Amino acid sequence: MQKSLIKVALLGAGTIGGGVYKLLNANSKIIEQRIGSQIVVSKVLERNARRCQELGMANNLIANSIDEIIDDPEIDIVIELMGGIDPAREFVIKALEKKKSVVTANKDMVALHGKELFAAAIKNKVDLLFEASVGGGIPIIRPLKQCLAANHIQEIMGIINGTTNYMLEKMSQEGLDFDLVLKEAQSKGYAEANPSSDVEGFDAARKIAILASIAFNTRVTVNDVYVEGISRITAEDIAYARELHYVVKLLGIAKEAPEGIEVRVHPVFIPEQHPLASVGDVFNAIFVKGDAVGETMFYGRGAGEMPTASAVAADVMDAARNLNNNVRGLVGCTCFEDKPIKPIGLTISKYYIRMQVADRPGVLASIAYEFGRYNVSLASVLQKNTLGDSAELVLVTHRVKEQNLRDSLDKIKLLDAIVHEVSNVIRVEGEDVKA
Amino acid sequence: MQKSLIKVALLGAGTIGGGVYKLLNANSKIIEQRIGSQIVVSKVLERNARRCQELGMANNLIANSIDEIIDDPEIDIVIELMGGIDPAREFVIKALEKKKSVVTANKDMVALHGKELFAAAIKNKVDLLFEASVGGGIPIIRPLKQCLAANHIQEIMGIINGTTNYMLEKMSQEGLDFDLVLKEAQSKGYAEANPSSDVEGFDAARKIAILASIAFNTRVTVNDVYVEGISRITAEDIAYARELHYVVKLLGIAKEAPEGIEVRVHPVFIPEQHPLASVGDVFNAIFVKGDAVGETMFYGRGAGEMPTASAVAADVMDAARNLNNNVRGLVGCTCFEDKPIKPIGLTISKYYIRMQVADRPGVLASIAYEFGRYNVSLASVLQKNTLGDSAELVLVTHRVKEQNLRDSLDKIKLLDAIVHEVSNVIRVEGEDVKA
Repeated sequence: MQKSLIKVALLGAGTIGGGVYKLLNANSKIIEQRIGSQIVVSKVLERNARRCQELGMANNLIANSIDEIIDDPEIDIVIELMGGIDPAREFVIKALEKKKSVVTANKDMVALHGKELFAAAIKNKVDLLFEASVGGGIPIIRPLKQCLAANHIQEIMGIINGTTNYMLEKMSQEGLDFDLVLKEAQSKGYAEANPSSDVEGFDAARKIAILASIAFNTRVTVNDVYVEGISRITAEDIAYARELHYVVKLLGIAKEAPEGIEVRVHPVFIPEQHPLASVGDVFNAIFVKGDAVGETMFYGRGAGEMPTASAVAADVMDAARNLNNNVRGLVGCTCFEDKPIKPIGLTISKYYIRMQVADRPGVLASIAYEFGRYNVSLASVLQKNTLGDSAELVLVTHRVKEQNLRDSLDKIKLLDAIVHEVSNVIRVEGEDVKA
Repeated sequence: MQKSLIKVALLGAGTIGGGVYKLLNANSKIIEQRIGSQIVVSKVLERNARRCQELGMANNLIANSIDEIIDDPEIDIVIELMGGIDPAREFVIKALEKKKSVVTANKDMVALHGKELFAAAIKNKVDLLFEASVGGGIPIIRPLKQCLAANHIQEIMGIINGTTNYMLEKMSQEGLDFDLVLKEAQSKGYAEANPSSDVEGFDAARKIAILASIAFNTRVTVNDVYVEGISRITAEDIAYARELHYVVKLLGIAKEAPEGIEVRVHPVFIPEQHPLASVGDVFNAIFVKGDAVGETMFYGRGAGEMPTASAVAADVMDAARNLNNNVRGLVGCTCFEDKPIKPIGLTISKYYIRMQVADRPGVLASIAYEFGRYNVSLASVLQKNTLGDSAELVLVTHRVKEQNLRDSLDKIKLLDAIVHEVSNVIRVEGEDVKA
């Protein structure tokens, strides 16, 4: 039942929707050669009429309602690029129930409602593909689901938010503080007027939830992810990182442990020779460790009109190929386990700690004593920037359970005669674990 | 027709074959959960009985002949890991003709006889999968065929031979010459007693032929690839590279141009900030540029027992999934074009040239005059290491057609009163092309 022409509908013609429309048109010949069918956008749901004009869409392409698309039996694939939860989720469910395969780039929706959506896809025997929801144009969903499928995935660490990667690099290169760099990123259009989704780590949290679900075969939602953003990172932290031969990155991290799945987003110090350390600008990179394959990394543009369109269009081609071969749902949802989430207090890490202390004899001893009581041992100590009777103390611990570190810091903060402030605590990742 | 158990046969139980056997056993539970069928190795063709014992294979697994496997109707998938052309090619064709899907890691066979093999797979409506033939465990074949399928691929540049990458890094870190580093690599088991396949670039040539065929939808064989190895690279070249802010790598390169497909393997200078420059040790990385996705890179272990087994086992899982869904050949051969190969003389590049010249006035003018006659213009000139009346001259050209450079150098070599030797010529790649 090879179709010579497959009709698709676009929900949303914003940046990504426009990119998909342009790409399916510009590369239509090679797409047809590669899958044996022509892909034609036959309906578009977009309220901004001017945008549709700009994209050169004929008037008869524009749908007046979602029903016009859902009820059109000739449309086989629906491409959801509206973003947000509502009404995207309702529209996707409707499309799946009408036996249409769905391609989406909507990380918010997949990270929060994946379970319901994949159940609907399976029930209706259609494809629900979402390569573009993580890492923009970088192939990562399909490699995890297929190419690395013979591995127990042990760990994923990803730079999966380009805005914060750009900002941290800028802070590092120019020694600037967070607020200044944020203003610059906003003026360049890299950060939004309300930047919290990027800088507070929520965008990365959605993406790592999606990756963790696939890697560990258990449903991880955005609500399971422990999240810290980069707004507390200062120029001082970045300068110390460099002095200690680390680079500061915002990472999404997911690991499997006997106690459950670790899944978190926060700034880290990673060694300057780690493959993720040299990922600059707005690029993304996802580092995956499997028991057979060892260390792999996937690098590219994690956002933007055409890179994201590349991933969406590839999913459309896969859905079309499956349709032609009557095998929709070939690689479906793989969350067949129900694993617990490991609480953040149980994670084990090294920590960088920067604090302001009184500059007098015995201070370090008192602090070290409290750390010792909680089994926190120190790998390195720097004391600097003495100002009046105050000194800046920078410590890096050996690997320790996070709850122990937190408890020890609570005690240390009570030493208010000698500890003026615990300025920052940043986890150290990506070093070879020596048990 | 979901089968609860799928029987596979192994041809060859050497390093990779043993790895695949171990992996299919060790991860059998997760493999079964992910595809819905148990994968069982039911026959092994391997003459080394002791090796089979070491792997813990029961005696009844060992086949006495290929026919015992080919004629067994219960075996659905044949995994060819013998390497070399004969008899691997004959056995694979036989298996395909008996409607068995084939998974192979055999780059020699695929790069030389791909056309015949894929034709047999298509004719018999079975899968012929070969992810492990390039880049070991790194997902690259499936990402090119599916994830980036909506792109016109413009360029592939890959570190696809770990041995030479290790050797060049060692030469660079320790300032050692080629012969010494080769001996060390041989003693570590990284290079073979007869190292020519690695160091002369033939191994990389097979892999870039396979990648180019997929990327440009035209059959490129190993015989189409222009090849230079690394045996002429000296410690001096590497020192100059560093001084000029480049790194020396052996790359497989494939580009599409109006005149045809460029496909070549040779040492290059790449800028030290290029993503490929920091790929160290025996790691591989493949940089792919597409018209929509932009720059992507795939990084990991390009060889070795378990990384390669990871790719082979993933292909077996895909073949099994396809079998269960009765869709064998879903993503088959995509060489539907017949594009010419662009001769090396027509490629355009920058060049690093190191030569020994007479140390007296007017020499540079004479050399520059010959370059000028062939439109070779110089981007930088270094003169060093004066020894007696001889000087070392290091030039980097602007972008120029290779034939022009070759013609100019032929003329310059005739200036034997002032030019003692043209010691090396290395192409410069990976810089942004400013027309």
